[in-house]
Amino acid sequence: MLKDKAALFVDGRYTEQAKLQVDSSLFELRHTVDDPPFEWIGRNLRSGDRLGYDPRLLTPDSVSRFASACRKAQAELIAIDANPIDTIWRDRPAAPLGVITQHKMRFAGESAAAKIAGVRKALNGVDGLLVSDPHNLAWLFNIRGSDVSHTPLPLGFAYLRSEGRPVLFLDSRKLSDAVRDSLGDLSEQLEPDALEPFVRQLGQDGAQVVFDAATAPALLTQALEKAGGKADIGKDPIALMKAVKNKAELAGARAAHLRDGAAMVRFLAWFDAEVAHKKLTEIDAVNALEGFRRATGALKDISFPTIAAAGPNSALPHYRVTLASNSTIHRGIFLIDSGGQYEDGTTDITRTIAIGRPTRLMRDRFTRVLKGHIAIARAVFPKGTSGGQIDALARLPLWRVGLDFDHGTGHGVGSYLSVHEGPHRISKKGDTPLVPGMILSNEPGYYLRGEFGIRIENLVVVESRTLANSDGDMLGFETLTLAPIDLRLVDWKLMDPEEIKWLNDYHAHVRKTLSPLVDSATRRWLATATRRSEI
Amino acid sequence: MLKDKAALFVDGRYTEQAKLQVDSSLFELRHTVDDPPFEWIGRNLRSGDRLGYDPRLLTPDSVSRFASACRKAQAELIAIDANPIDTIWRDRPAAPLGVITQHKMRFAGESAAAKIAGVRKALNGVDGLLVSDPHNLAWLFNIRGSDVSHTPLPLGFAYLRSEGRPVLFLDSRKLSDAVRDSLGDLSEQLEPDALEPFVRQLGQDGAQVVFDAATAPALLTQALEKAGGKADIGKDPIALMKAVKNKAELAGARAAHLRDGAAMVRFLAWFDAEVAHKKLTEIDAVNALEGFRRATGALKDISFPTIAAAGPNSALPHYRVTLASNSTIHRGIFLIDSGGQYEDGTTDITRTIAIGRPTRLMRDRFTRVLKGHIAIARAVFPKGTSGGQIDALARLPLWRVGLDFDHGTGHGVGSYLSVHEGPHRISKKGDTPLVPGMILSNEPGYYLRGEFGIRIENLVVVESRTLANSDGDMLGFETLTLAPIDLRLVDWKLMDPEEIKWLNDYHAHVRKTLSPLVDSATRRWLATATRRSEI
Repeated sequence: MLKDKAALFVDGRYTEQAKLQVDSSLFELRHTVDDPPFEWIGRNLRSGDRLGYDPRLLTPDSVSRFASACRKAQAELIAIDANPIDTIWRDRPAAPLGVITQHKMRFAGESAAAKIAGVRKALNGVDGLLVSDPHNLAWLFNIRGSDVSHTPLPLGFAYLRSEGRPVLFLDSRKLSDAVRDSLGDLSEQLEPDALEPFVRQLGQDGAQVVFDAATAPALLTQALEKAGGKADIGKDPIALMKAVKNKAELAGARAAHLRDGAAMVRFLAWFDAEVAHKKLTEIDAVNALEGFRRATGALKDISFPTIAAAGPNSALPHYRVTLASNSTIHRGIFLIDSGGQYEDGTTDITRTIAIGRPTRLMRDRFTRVLKGHIAIARAVFPKGTSGGQIDALARLPLWRVGLDFDHGTGHGVGSYLSVHEGPHRISKKGDTPLVPGMILSNEPGYYLRGEFGIRIENLVVVESRTLANSDGDMLGFETLTLAPIDLRLVDWKLMDPEEIKWLNDYHAHVRKTLSPLVDSATRRWLATATRRSEI
Repeated sequence: MLKDKAALFVDGRYTEQAKLQVDSSLFELRHTVDDPPFEWIGRNLRSGDRLGYDPRLLTPDSVSRFASACRKAQAELIAIDANPIDTIWRDRPAAPLGVITQHKMRFAGESAAAKIAGVRKALNGVDGLLVSDPHNLAWLFNIRGSDVSHTPLPLGFAYLRSEGRPVLFLDSRKLSDAVRDSLGDLSEQLEPDALEPFVRQLGQDGAQVVFDAATAPALLTQALEKAGGKADIGKDPIALMKAVKNKAELAGARAAHLRDGAAMVRFLAWFDAEVAHKKLTEIDAVNALEGFRRATGALKDISFPTIAAAGPNSALPHYRVTLASNSTIHRGIFLIDSGGQYEDGTTDITRTIAIGRPTRLMRDRFTRVLKGHIAIARAVFPKGTSGGQIDALARLPLWRVGLDFDHGTGHGVGSYLSVHEGPHRISKKGDTPLVPGMILSNEPGYYLRGEFGIRIENLVVVESRTLANSDGDMLGFETLTLAPIDLRLVDWKLMDPEEIKWLNDYHAHVRKTLSPLVDSATRRWLATATRRSEI
């Protein structure tokens, strides 16, 4: 935001939505990848301008990008003490005080003490690590919080020393006596406002501290360096450790997907019957699906606000229904993207459903998205391959006719944590090698503005593959998500025999595993929905 | 090389060859990608060790990688004045004095003056650019040299000022009066030994100079900074400009490939007839192919030493026949990788040929390599896509059975310049977006140690594609290379209908364009070699 102009930066999932929801006379709308904020700022600053930033909110990496943009424009970048938005924000809610619970050992699979020892080893002689990403904090101490909706995060920080007990910076009001005692066996505990002076003291002691470039507040790295310490701004090694799920977490993920799949199939069968009455709205669908998940008795929360989008609404990849936008579900496409938080695992699934007879265009586009989905599901690749190397497999059937989708093919998924976690991903820029045990989404899509949108999403886990004559270690994906893919939308002429075989095998597996878990009416629906197709 | 041990670092193309040709009691053999020199050095240095390096030979990037390895090992990195290898190398040849010629405007397509103006624009207000890569020097001034075999490079440097005439540092003995006068219109000319003092003077003037991280000698960046200047170590913008061929260069490439294809087809027809007598050796094949290229009357040089490999020799990706290794070409696989330097373009082609009836394994592996080749040739992708995103398409048919090849899928190719040029490439690490006009090789392979090797290589040029309903600008490849692919090695059961169609279309195009250029016996051979296969 400059004196005379302002811009809003969103990625491809939100460009259409932003046009509808933001006053473009106040904000220019920019694609955050194609025209990132620091470039826009660089173009719009004039020589001598002074650009303020809040060092609590920007990471050191962002600060240096803005600093370089300012230098080029001969402007000045200045850390401000008081954020003007805080000053005018009168009805600002207090910081959350969500209760913190222990993440049970049978789901975590590894004790906090063992994890702490493992991370220490990865520090390679540096004095300590400042854990600024609450996902990593939760993983390291086997705790879960309730400060953020849909993601069981405990907001806070930790300092992990190469020797001696770690220090936790959590608001003590969030801790029950039992949790406090249990954490007390592992760590010292301080209040969050003790963090900045603590870091300053580390600096005075000349400490070399690793900070996570993606989440550390510049305030802390600046405080450390000003006091005489050395900030080693790079990657928090916890992110990669957390990404690779252990046996207990994988068993949990499979159990969660079985439970979630049964709820999803009950929903899909109910939906097919109800939608015929032509009265069902998007909100009805959201509520029904959440109801089926709650009925499992194990749902802690949904894993993000459900996207239930009828007709043209489905062309917005991250559409969220409101009372104002709520549409009756009519002939055409219905897209539903949802997930559950269970103590044993986090789920995320998207299905695209035909209402009535789909058009030829819908079937063509759905089939291309499905071919991309199957190409990822069937991929076999050597150890060391990153998501960026295989992302194109999901896009090629669309590229062939000049189309694409403007979001990643897959994101990492946490274990009773965030439905989006890094560093692993299947996308153009995914450079983290895939490792057995990583859970990712496989979700190619296609969006035709004002008409319809398609997305087919399953979660997959990277697994080792043993192949005769193999030169080296090969990897592939096991699909975790269990629910039928709508066969009414498939254009069989576009499908290769191997693709039809994958779809038949997947559906046979879904039918076999879920049939015992659902009522007889749902079971009948499932048998039809997963019927075998001739190759 | 350390006091008590030494290592040789080679990439995947040379690992097998190094085992055969290097005394492993003197040198450990290391894979330069999996275990790069600076990591090996880091592991093997002891605290207090002092590691010397020659700042004429290392780039600033390499120096900082070695410096960081030394820091971790608590060792010291020291620039040395006199390289001990120079001291003991008694029969060292003098630096080459190859004659420099003008690269004609009808092949270059753009004047040196226009190129210089374009590069200046790309400097964005920095004081100047030190051109340290002779490929870029040749392109910028439209000159070609003869200092290096098979690549018409003029060894030397240039300094391009943001204002004022560029300075060329070329040994004046390489210049004829005509070339000197013509270059004199554009530039000042100094001897190479004037470069270091010149850079020091720039430093004293406080200049900010761009250096190419990949080729600039650390000696020069250090000299500049020591004298008070600022070294901006990044990418020489010329590399990308040179990579995108203009209309004249593309017309030249097509003409060179037509001429080279006719020579290649004459060779292949001759080879099929001669090999039946069971006396042909690898060296005979090399000489014959060069003879057919020379007979075009346009060959300036071959573009690299021909790889002609029979049987197990073909399993070495960069085998080079010697009198000692020269094999008689017998039943099995024969691989020939070669190219020509013509004033209008540089060629590079590999064909794998069956001698007698190939085994089932050979046909399976050849067909998988061919499927990968066709996947690249047929690829359609959006503007902005890099080679790293599509590299996997060439590997997937091999990956599926646990195999791979340990080299890139494609390298950039110069225009009457080096057969290997960057920054564009199709490989795991290729992050340069592909742009219409870039010429690359498409050369997947497969190598079974001690048995046989396969590679199918054509050059391709990136082109724009117009597709109905397209969301944005799409790109694809036009195949430039013209020569049959050996149908006797194809396992048709593994081929998809689209792949067979591509092969038929390619062969029809080869037959149609080359038939008028060859003798009648070759034409008959060509008709058989390019016969249509049923889908």
